[in-house]
Amino acid sequence: MGDEATWPVVGMVGGGQLARMSQPPAVALGVRLSVLAASPEAAAAQVINSPVVADEKALADLRAFAESCDVLTFDHEHVPSQHLQELEALGVPVRPGSAALVHAQDKLVMRERLTALGVPCPRYRVVTGPDEVRASLRDLGDSVVLKTSRGGYDGKGVWLIDGGTSAEVIAEPFRAGVPVLVEERVNFTRELAAVVARSPSGQAVAYPVVESVQRDGICVEVVAPAPGLDPDLAAEAQRTALSVAAELDVVGVLAVELFQTADDRLLVNELAMRPHNSAHWTIDGAVTSQFENHLRAVLDLPLGSPMARAPYTVMVNVLGGDLPDVYPAYRHVLARDPGLKVHWYGKAVTPGRKVGHVTVCGDDLADLRERAWHAADYIRGDIDE
Amino acid sequence: MGDEATWPVVGMVGGGQLARMSQPPAVALGVRLSVLAASPEAAAAQVINSPVVADEKALADLRAFAESCDVLTFDHEHVPSQHLQELEALGVPVRPGSAALVHAQDKLVMRERLTALGVPCPRYRVVTGPDEVRASLRDLGDSVVLKTSRGGYDGKGVWLIDGGTSAEVIAEPFRAGVPVLVEERVNFTRELAAVVARSPSGQAVAYPVVESVQRDGICVEVVAPAPGLDPDLAAEAQRTALSVAAELDVVGVLAVELFQTADDRLLVNELAMRPHNSAHWTIDGAVTSQFENHLRAVLDLPLGSPMARAPYTVMVNVLGGDLPDVYPAYRHVLARDPGLKVHWYGKAVTPGRKVGHVTVCGDDLADLRERAWHAADYIRGDIDE
Repeated sequence: MGDEATWPVVGMVGGGQLARMSQPPAVALGVRLSVLAASPEAAAAQVINSPVVADEKALADLRAFAESCDVLTFDHEHVPSQHLQELEALGVPVRPGSAALVHAQDKLVMRERLTALGVPCPRYRVVTGPDEVRASLRDLGDSVVLKTSRGGYDGKGVWLIDGGTSAEVIAEPFRAGVPVLVEERVNFTRELAAVVARSPSGQAVAYPVVESVQRDGICVEVVAPAPGLDPDLAAEAQRTALSVAAELDVVGVLAVELFQTADDRLLVNELAMRPHNSAHWTIDGAVTSQFENHLRAVLDLPLGSPMARAPYTVMVNVLGGDLPDVYPAYRHVLARDPGLKVHWYGKAVTPGRKVGHVTVCGDDLADLRERAWHAADYIRGDIDE
Repeated sequence: MGDEATWPVVGMVGGGQLARMSQPPAVALGVRLSVLAASPEAAAAQVINSPVVADEKALADLRAFAESCDVLTFDHEHVPSQHLQELEALGVPVRPGSAALVHAQDKLVMRERLTALGVPCPRYRVVTGPDEVRASLRDLGDSVVLKTSRGGYDGKGVWLIDGGTSAEVIAEPFRAGVPVLVEERVNFTRELAAVVARSPSGQAVAYPVVESVQRDGICVEVVAPAPGLDPDLAAEAQRTALSVAAELDVVGVLAVELFQTADDRLLVNELAMRPHNSAHWTIDGAVTSQFENHLRAVLDLPLGSPMARAPYTVMVNVLGGDLPDVYPAYRHVLARDPGLKVHWYGKAVTPGRKVGHVTVCGDDLADLRERAWHAADYIRGDIDE
């Protein structure tokens, strides 16, 4: 098998569902996916030949892993910036690079950079203590959003503050020892996401703009494309994402989470530089999935078409319920709907944990939403028929 | 991760591209795919956690493998029937079972059974030596097809015989020590394939009937659905496949290869009881791929929709050319056609070997064929622009 040496190995740091869902396109593309995971039972480790079980945040482990890979990329944003910089100094191709990734790791760095680029964001300021938070309630609005610059995800590291919030809650973010931001609470009509993939040579593709629905800070539903979105606004969202990707020199997938306001302004909420929940629909609903385009991008292979394959695709996350054994419920939803696509992450089922997602494609949006939600609710145990 | 014990493990015997292409749907379904392969570098072994490297035809190795799996299925038809019977006697769920699988292993058993079921086949007879072959040239036609009952695939084990064929060639099949058949050479206008999946509980789904094109006994192109096929004839082909699957108690995918004659009769050429080259198009072109439905079937999970996702899907096999390093050509075809779906098998490239396939979906059949063939020809090195 001598010729195989010329085919590249992608090393992904992190063994969660994003790494797991990268394996199917790696199999198809013929590139070898290697995974550094904290546990041999991690979602991705289960489906990869010889996963490397090591500490995802230890420089020595990252260095050893990088030696067996042609390029390093990530399932999450938790690898410390200084480690990435040291790897880059050693000549390891880190994609996205540390200088880009910091904008997905540090909300303050992101806000300052986007503001400098003229990208509309919620009004924000840095606060150093509870008094400044209370002061912000006067000029940013009746309620504000308090965030640590680093360490938050899925609603963690974010607090909603108003005049009645206790001193204890307001003091909490300051204990993390990182800069704290306060932002205006945007009165949005819905949340959108613009997802693009970009390669080192600068080629980029933009997926259709989607609507995403969050509950308790967790994405629960995505509709692609965002229903009824003005084409000009959709193009603006895509332009923003492409421009941010280019200005920040992002390599791989970039997801830009946006607020759409009542007066049809778009404000950037968050950035993610990896395959993102708002584009899981692309596995079944687009010509080339975000996972495939992420692999292509980090390898500087030509990108695939991001076009949708159906008028609508609906993705609903499956969150764990109280019942750990969901296999009987899983059988039931497959039987009820032969058109349902299930994506299961191989994770232990605990209440509220993202354990999978379901997707349906078609032209009748109400029907698609009913079917996807039925499956997720049934597996969770919220309904029994 | 205690709950995972209740999720089943599918053990696939054989580490070729069919096992490899079963891994993406296993990842999505959340079922564990285990593979018994002859080499750690086998196509499937590269992409599976802890592949079992052992002898696929040794009973002891099969028994040990079966102990770690909930159900045993196959990437090929080369496991001896008696081993399968012994495993069944030990209580191992073998799917398809040995009594069904023998019809895909032994062409004589298949012909006799299909004839008994009233399924139209080419006229055939068993021959015991060269004299009987020559005699058949009088009453079966000017040329006939000579086949060993066992051991053939991809054109091997099949000889085209006419009045000018040398005695040496005619004698060759009889050296294998297995029954030999002679069949009329059917004057077909094209070859079709009807692929179905069936579960132990008897649920079955039929994929759209496709046209397949063979060169030198190897499938090179598949068009789904078969262009211009009379709907009645398509329904007849699907009914035949469903009926054969039920009568033979097939579990998993059954592919029925058919000749379409000038007077629109359908004659069964071959049976395969595993995912089949004539349904590789379903990965990109159907709601549920044959690989996913094979896994669902052997686990007795409800089957997924076999519906096509586009008016036409064209699949072209990529055969190896003289150049072992095809990565530059691979990059080129991805760049030329962002809508092309590539499936690479991770095999060393040698002349004529199936090393991958490409698929394109859409509504302009001529355009799809041009694009798919361009990619395959370019990678093979037959064209350079």
